[in-house]
Amino acid sequence: MNIYGLILAGGSGSRLWPLSRELYPKQFLNINSDKSLLQSAFERLATFIKPENIICITNAKHLANVKMQLGETTVLAEPVAKNTAPAIVCAAKFITQRDSSDPIILVVPSDSLIKNIELFQSTVEKGEKLAQEGYIVTFGVKPNYPETGYGYINVTPDFKVKEFVEKPDSATAQKYLDKGTYFWNTGMFMFKVSVLLNEIERFAPEIAEIAKSIDFDKSNEIPCAEFEKMPSISIDYAVMEKSDKIALVKFESDWNDLGSWQSFYDTNEKDINGNVLVGSVLDKDSKNSLVYSSSKLVAAIGLEDTIIVETEDAVLACKKYCSQDIKHIYETLRAQNNDAHCVHKTIYCPWGYYTEIDRGKGFLVKRIHVNAGQRLSLQSHNHRHEHWVVVSGIAKVLLDGQEHSLEPGKSIDIPVKAPHSLQNPSKKDIEIIEVQRGDILSEDDIIRYEDIYGRI
Amino acid sequence: MNIYGLILAGGSGSRLWPLSRELYPKQFLNINSDKSLLQSAFERLATFIKPENIICITNAKHLANVKMQLGETTVLAEPVAKNTAPAIVCAAKFITQRDSSDPIILVVPSDSLIKNIELFQSTVEKGEKLAQEGYIVTFGVKPNYPETGYGYINVTPDFKVKEFVEKPDSATAQKYLDKGTYFWNTGMFMFKVSVLLNEIERFAPEIAEIAKSIDFDKSNEIPCAEFEKMPSISIDYAVMEKSDKIALVKFESDWNDLGSWQSFYDTNEKDINGNVLVGSVLDKDSKNSLVYSSSKLVAAIGLEDTIIVETEDAVLACKKYCSQDIKHIYETLRAQNNDAHCVHKTIYCPWGYYTEIDRGKGFLVKRIHVNAGQRLSLQSHNHRHEHWVVVSGIAKVLLDGQEHSLEPGKSIDIPVKAPHSLQNPSKKDIEIIEVQRGDILSEDDIIRYEDIYGRI
Repeated sequence: MNIYGLILAGGSGSRLWPLSRELYPKQFLNINSDKSLLQSAFERLATFIKPENIICITNAKHLANVKMQLGETTVLAEPVAKNTAPAIVCAAKFITQRDSSDPIILVVPSDSLIKNIELFQSTVEKGEKLAQEGYIVTFGVKPNYPETGYGYINVTPDFKVKEFVEKPDSATAQKYLDKGTYFWNTGMFMFKVSVLLNEIERFAPEIAEIAKSIDFDKSNEIPCAEFEKMPSISIDYAVMEKSDKIALVKFESDWNDLGSWQSFYDTNEKDINGNVLVGSVLDKDSKNSLVYSSSKLVAAIGLEDTIIVETEDAVLACKKYCSQDIKHIYETLRAQNNDAHCVHKTIYCPWGYYTEIDRGKGFLVKRIHVNAGQRLSLQSHNHRHEHWVVVSGIAKVLLDGQEHSLEPGKSIDIPVKAPHSLQNPSKKDIEIIEVQRGDILSEDDIIRYEDIYGRI
Repeated sequence: MNIYGLILAGGSGSRLWPLSRELYPKQFLNINSDKSLLQSAFERLATFIKPENIICITNAKHLANVKMQLGETTVLAEPVAKNTAPAIVCAAKFITQRDSSDPIILVVPSDSLIKNIELFQSTVEKGEKLAQEGYIVTFGVKPNYPETGYGYINVTPDFKVKEFVEKPDSATAQKYLDKGTYFWNTGMFMFKVSVLLNEIERFAPEIAEIAKSIDFDKSNEIPCAEFEKMPSISIDYAVMEKSDKIALVKFESDWNDLGSWQSFYDTNEKDINGNVLVGSVLDKDSKNSLVYSSSKLVAAIGLEDTIIVETEDAVLACKKYCSQDIKHIYETLRAQNNDAHCVHKTIYCPWGYYTEIDRGKGFLVKRIHVNAGQRLSLQSHNHRHEHWVVVSGIAKVLLDGQEHSLEPGKSIDIPVKAPHSLQNPSKKDIEIIEVQRGDILSEDDIIRYEDIYGRI
C-alpha cells in the first residue's frame, strides 16, 4: 500500500519569541542542528517514504521559506490560515487526485524535536497496521510529569480514543498523570485517505462539500475562493472527537514540541551548574539558566532559573517558570503593531537573504546576500532611490535595459522609477550594501516586472 | 581668596559596563539627565566658581570626549594613567603658575551624582573656611547602611581625620556603621595650594621633585617624560594618611557615586512593583528589577531582583546583589582582548560621532555623523578603499586636491592611498554611510596630514 507523508508547516512563531517570529516561526529555525526542524521532519519521513510522496502544506506567507528549505518538495500553500482540518482535507484531496490506490497518509507537525529515528519508524509501523484496518490513528506520548503546555488524549484500556482535551491547568494535569489513561497529543495522525474523507463527510459535511469543488488537476494551488469559505477548525474538533474509529498508538521515541523556552532548556545538555549557554555568552555563577545569544555578547552573573534570549533586534529576559507567558508579550506587541512580534532584521528569501543594518530619517541601509546562481526580480520603486555597493562577489545589474558587471568596490545608482534587477550568475555568493533614500521607505513600494518569488 | 575647581575625569568604565566602557566611562554618560555626569559636575562648580577657574584633568585617551562635553574649559591631559596624586599635583602646579595668590582648590570626581546644589554649596563653604585655616579638607557622607562599595574615613570627635580605609567587607562595614566615626569617602578635597604642595614635599618628595621640573608657562600640556616618572599613587595614600592637617567636613547633600548598577537602581524612582524600566522595555510581572534598554526592545517576564542592561553590542543579565561582580566580567573581557570591555559601537569625536553598523569578511560599514561646522582631518589609508554615500546634509569632500560638494544620494570613491578629507561647512549636521573594503580594516591604518583631534 502506498504511503504519503504530509508535513503541516503553518505554525505561528509566538512561543519561542524572539527567536521565532510570525514571519519566521520555529519550524524554520536551526535548533541545535545544522538542519531546521522542518528539514528534520522531512528527512525523518524520507527514511521510509519516497521523497516525491512527501507533501508540505503551509501558509502562503511562508511559501518562500518552505521552498528554500525543502527544495523540490511539493508544497501546498493555504491562501489564509484555517487551522488543521481544511489543510488536511485539501492535502488528502490533492493526493487522491494523483493516486487512486487509496493510500495511507501520515500527518506530522513540522516543528517537533524527535531524535530516535528507529523508534519513530517502529511506532509508525504500528500505526500503519491500524490505519490499514480502517482506523484513524493518533500518536500519544506517555506523560512522565504533569505538563500544562500540551493537549492530552484519553483512551480506553484497548487504546480506542475516548476524548481529546486542551492544555489543562496544573491540578488537572496531575489528575491525568495519576489516571494513567491520558497521553500527550503529538499532533501526528495516520489514516487511509478514504477513511478520513468518509469521516469528514459524516462529521464536517461543510468542509467535505467545499473540498469536492476543488480541482488540483491543473495546478498545486489551493483556490482562494473555495478555501476561504471553509470553517477554521482543527482536525481534533472536526473529526477526532466525534468519530468512533480513532485509535491511539503509544509514541515510543523521544518527543518534544519545543513549545516553550522551558522545553528548549529541557531538551539541551546542561553544564555542571545546570546551565544551557548558547552562542557568545560569558557566565559567572549562574545556575539552572538558559542564556542564548544569537548576535552579540551576553554576560550573565548569578542568574537562577532564568531565561535570556538575545537576537539582533530584541531581548527576552524571563523566569523559567514564566516561559509560557511569552505569548502575552507577543500578543501585546501585535496589538501595538510593533514589528518585533513579526519580523526579524534578517529576512530569508528563495534567492538568499537580506538584513537591515541601519535606519534613520529618510534612509535605510541593508546588506543583501544573493546565493550563487540566483536572481531578484526585475523591479522598480516609485518613492526611493537606491545605491548599491558590491562588497563581495561579482554582481550583474540590469538597469534601464543596460547590463553592468560590478566587482567588489564598484557601486551603482538606481534612480526612482528605474527598472532594475540584481543577478548572480556566478558560482560564488555575492554581498552588496544597499543605501535606500526617500520619504517613503516601504517594502510595499515595489513594482515587479516578473513573477518570481523574491522580495527585497 | 580665589577659588579654583579641579574635576578629576580619568576614571575607567568597568563598573557600569556595558553602558560604560574603557573608552567611554561613566562620567561621559547622560544618566537620567540631558547632561552627562561630567557636565553636571562642571555646572555644579560653576554656580560659585568662575568658569575660567574650573579645570578638568583627564587621561589623554579621553581628551576628545572631555573637550566635546566641556567646550572651552581648560583641560589637562595625563599622558598615562597615574592615579590621583600626580594628577592633583600637576594641576596645582598649573594653577600656581597662573595665579600667585595661593588660591584654594576644590577637587571633585567627575562621576558623582549630586542633586541638591544648595546643600552642596553650603557644605563647600564649610570646607573653604577650614582650608583657609590651613587644613586639607575631605568630605564624608554619614553612612546609613553598611555599604561595601565605598572607601571610609575614620575621624576623631573633633573631625580630624584618623585614617582612610579601603572598601570593607560586610562585617567590617557593619562595624564602621556601628562606631559612628566612619564616613563614606566622596573623593572630594579642598585645600590652599601652598598647604597641599608643602605636604607633598614632606610626604611624597619624589612627586614634588618631578613637579618642580614641569613648566606650564608655554602650554597646557603635561610633559610626557616627566609625568611618566611619577609614581602611581592616590592622594589618599600619598598625603592624606600621613599628614596631620586633614579635617573632614560632613557632606550634607545627597550623594551617590553610581559605582554599580545597584546604585543606579537605588537612585532612580521605582514603579509600583519596585522596577526601574528605562528605554524600550515591555514588562510583565517583574519585581524590584532594573531593565535598561539603550537600543532594542527588551521583554521582561517575572524577573525578581534582577538587572538587565542592553546596549548596541552587549547585554548584561545579573542578579542585583552580584552587581559588583561586573568588574570580573570586564576583566575577563580585557584579558581575552575582547573589544567589548573597551569600545562601544558608537564612538564620539570632537567633530561628531560614528557607529559601526555592519562588518563582514573584507568589509566594514559605518554611519558617520559630522556636526555642523566641523571637519575631519585630511588623511589617507594604505590598505582600504572607502566609498561614501551621503544620506543627509551636504558634504564637502576634498579628494586628491579636488573639492566635491555632495548632496544626499551622491557618492564618491576614495581609492587606497588617496588623501581625502570630509568637511561640513554648513549649519546642518551631515550623515554619510561609509563602506570600507580591504584586507586590513583597522583604525590604525591612517596617515594624517593635519594635526587636529578627529579620528575616524
